[in-house]
Amino acid sequence: MKEISGGICAPKGFASGGIHCGIKKGSQKKDLALIYSPTPCAAAAMFTTNIVKAASIQVCRENIDNGKLHAVIVNSGNANACTGQDGLDSARKMALLAANVLGLDKSQVAVASTGVIGVPLPIELIEKNIDDLKLSLRDDMQGHEAALEAIMTTDIRKKEISIEIEIDGKLVRIGAMAKGSGMIHPDMATMLCFITTDAAVSIDTLNEVLRNAVKKSFNRVTVDGDTSTNDIVLVMANGQALNEAINNKEHRNYEVFSSALEYVCIALAKMIAADGEGATKLLTVTVKGAFCEDTAEKLAKSVASSSLVKAACFGADANWGRVLCAMGYAKAEFSPETAGVVFRSGAGEIEVCAGGVTVLFDEVKAKEVLSQSEIEILINLKDGDGTASVWGCDLTYDYVKINGDYRS
Amino acid sequence: MKEISGGICAPKGFASGGIHCGIKKGSQKKDLALIYSPTPCAAAAMFTTNIVKAASIQVCRENIDNGKLHAVIVNSGNANACTGQDGLDSARKMALLAANVLGLDKSQVAVASTGVIGVPLPIELIEKNIDDLKLSLRDDMQGHEAALEAIMTTDIRKKEISIEIEIDGKLVRIGAMAKGSGMIHPDMATMLCFITTDAAVSIDTLNEVLRNAVKKSFNRVTVDGDTSTNDIVLVMANGQALNEAINNKEHRNYEVFSSALEYVCIALAKMIAADGEGATKLLTVTVKGAFCEDTAEKLAKSVASSSLVKAACFGADANWGRVLCAMGYAKAEFSPETAGVVFRSGAGEIEVCAGGVTVLFDEVKAKEVLSQSEIEILINLKDGDGTASVWGCDLTYDYVKINGDYRS
Repeated sequence: MKEISGGICAPKGFASGGIHCGIKKGSQKKDLALIYSPTPCAAAAMFTTNIVKAASIQVCRENIDNGKLHAVIVNSGNANACTGQDGLDSARKMALLAANVLGLDKSQVAVASTGVIGVPLPIELIEKNIDDLKLSLRDDMQGHEAALEAIMTTDIRKKEISIEIEIDGKLVRIGAMAKGSGMIHPDMATMLCFITTDAAVSIDTLNEVLRNAVKKSFNRVTVDGDTSTNDIVLVMANGQALNEAINNKEHRNYEVFSSALEYVCIALAKMIAADGEGATKLLTVTVKGAFCEDTAEKLAKSVASSSLVKAACFGADANWGRVLCAMGYAKAEFSPETAGVVFRSGAGEIEVCAGGVTVLFDEVKAKEVLSQSEIEILINLKDGDGTASVWGCDLTYDYVKINGDYRS
Repeated sequence: MKEISGGICAPKGFASGGIHCGIKKGSQKKDLALIYSPTPCAAAAMFTTNIVKAASIQVCRENIDNGKLHAVIVNSGNANACTGQDGLDSARKMALLAANVLGLDKSQVAVASTGVIGVPLPIELIEKNIDDLKLSLRDDMQGHEAALEAIMTTDIRKKEISIEIEIDGKLVRIGAMAKGSGMIHPDMATMLCFITTDAAVSIDTLNEVLRNAVKKSFNRVTVDGDTSTNDIVLVMANGQALNEAINNKEHRNYEVFSSALEYVCIALAKMIAADGEGATKLLTVTVKGAFCEDTAEKLAKSVASSSLVKAACFGADANWGRVLCAMGYAKAEFSPETAGVVFRSGAGEIEVCAGGVTVLFDEVKAKEVLSQSEIEILINLKDGDGTASVWGCDLTYDYVKINGDYRS
């Protein structure tokens, strides 16, 4: 497996584009994106588990029901959530507009939205600019960059990846882009993530591979404990790599494709955590030696979600008591009296807790370790073999600033 | 029922005191408190549900096991949590030291601690100053103020209340003080709260009344989603009011006493929320019309815990979509399409959402309503009769500042 350039346009036969249509007011930032494969794609998606679901989520679910897609249209600047029947009508129209310019049936187009909740979607702006959106489609570098820009909201960093693997002597590519910075605390699916691949994969297998990858990637990210109304991860596989279709778990190439997709998802998950609203540091919390993987995940997620742990990381304060405290209320079993905690970063590592109590440690060294932009919190338990890593970020003044006045 | 002065010394027969013994380094702030009733008290307590429990919690639980107490000794500046066997020894010694100077058995003394986790408790400082602590005992205004000061950590406001009720023609008093500002997200009991009363109440009834009151007060407060290792609510009833003992739920005075205790607990719970670390605003989230009270509580707690809702309140941003979003991931059932949201404060009230979608509202008015120091978020559902209020606070720059470097 090697990383290549091209993002979502790296796989053969995918084009994408993005324009400014006016949903993001008072700026010329792009706010409308399109991804298109002339070849029909097997498609799979996962959606938010929030009871309050955006209209786009509901329409996307309808259209992806048969596992086949040609395109996806996405807007930023407006979540089209809590918008009632008008919102549903707009989401359906959005799919129809894209279908019409591409010569497709509307059921072949997925829809996604991200932005402010509760404001009617100005569908007329999309209608007015749909031809320009089609004209923006390219399969080269500018295509994927324009689409990537058009799905960003409070994101600062661009989040995309593309890789190449070999399957049966054929080169297979996977490209992906994501947005997400606040309201990040996935619980099944998360934020917006679009994955393209030219692998030949059956619909059922694509679904299964996606579910496994999301469980170990996006569902292990937290920025602020808020599970969004609009989360979606969508993968489209158009088969242009001409490999023998991977159509079940026993297929000899299932593992290599599955691992590659998991790699892509984890890479994007970490980018989302590092670009959490206001974040200055990427936190990786790893729990080892838990009763089982689920327990390790619960404990790690509780630590990564703790406002106190996050603020301590911002302040480079080796306050390991908060780490144990956060595990203690995770509603998962562990033995505090044998727990150990180590902080690690590019500046080295430092043990701060062993056997559940403090270890005499060098505060100056600890401060240095915790002052780096990527910090690992390693928790060693002696309860079993369960291991899991969860990604998060620090809690900063800027998180408060960004969210104190997001709408204006 | 009327509010009176005197705090925990308002009930007959209680004395309290507080001194600086040196646990809080680099300041002369008080850090050691004592509450004492020469008459034996019926006692009841609730403790944190965090798996990581402070040594003081474990010792306190042992000593209160028989439902009888004469005194409680409390230190601030050190949580005595994650301190292993040494911590347990220190907590037991702390009770013994107080018992010795008061001429009691150590099992008649409760112990509590609050402060930094994972640092050994300097029990020698308590031993050295135990006589001074006894000398500080008074049953007048200075006694309760000294004790109150001595249990504070990052608290800015003093949190106490005392009330008087009449039972069978006898005046009965309840006094209480609490500390708690960060690591506040109770899940059974919370922070430190000490309640005194001169009511005659049986141990079992006192337990029952306390559990009911805590469920509707402290367990409905959240500051930062972190459930502490040291939470304790303790009530001592010495019977000095000479009312006929309230010894079961059918007793004719059960209701009046129970309501009074609930009133005291709710008042302190609100003070804790208003004094949340860095907070500038008290938020009261009320859900009405839920399927049942439990559902209403879960939904309200999810809204009050949302970092995004809290930051929006800080910025006086009427971003009601975040309110619905937070209910959506509360893991409780409700019908989004009939939900309504109103913001209310001393500056008036404004409806922002009805039938699950936006209501055209005056942004200037909304800003004014949300700029007050006490804000109510009223959520109306049409699912049933369940109602609950939860108290929280806004998320501010100062929360990050306080917790970025708490230990130093």
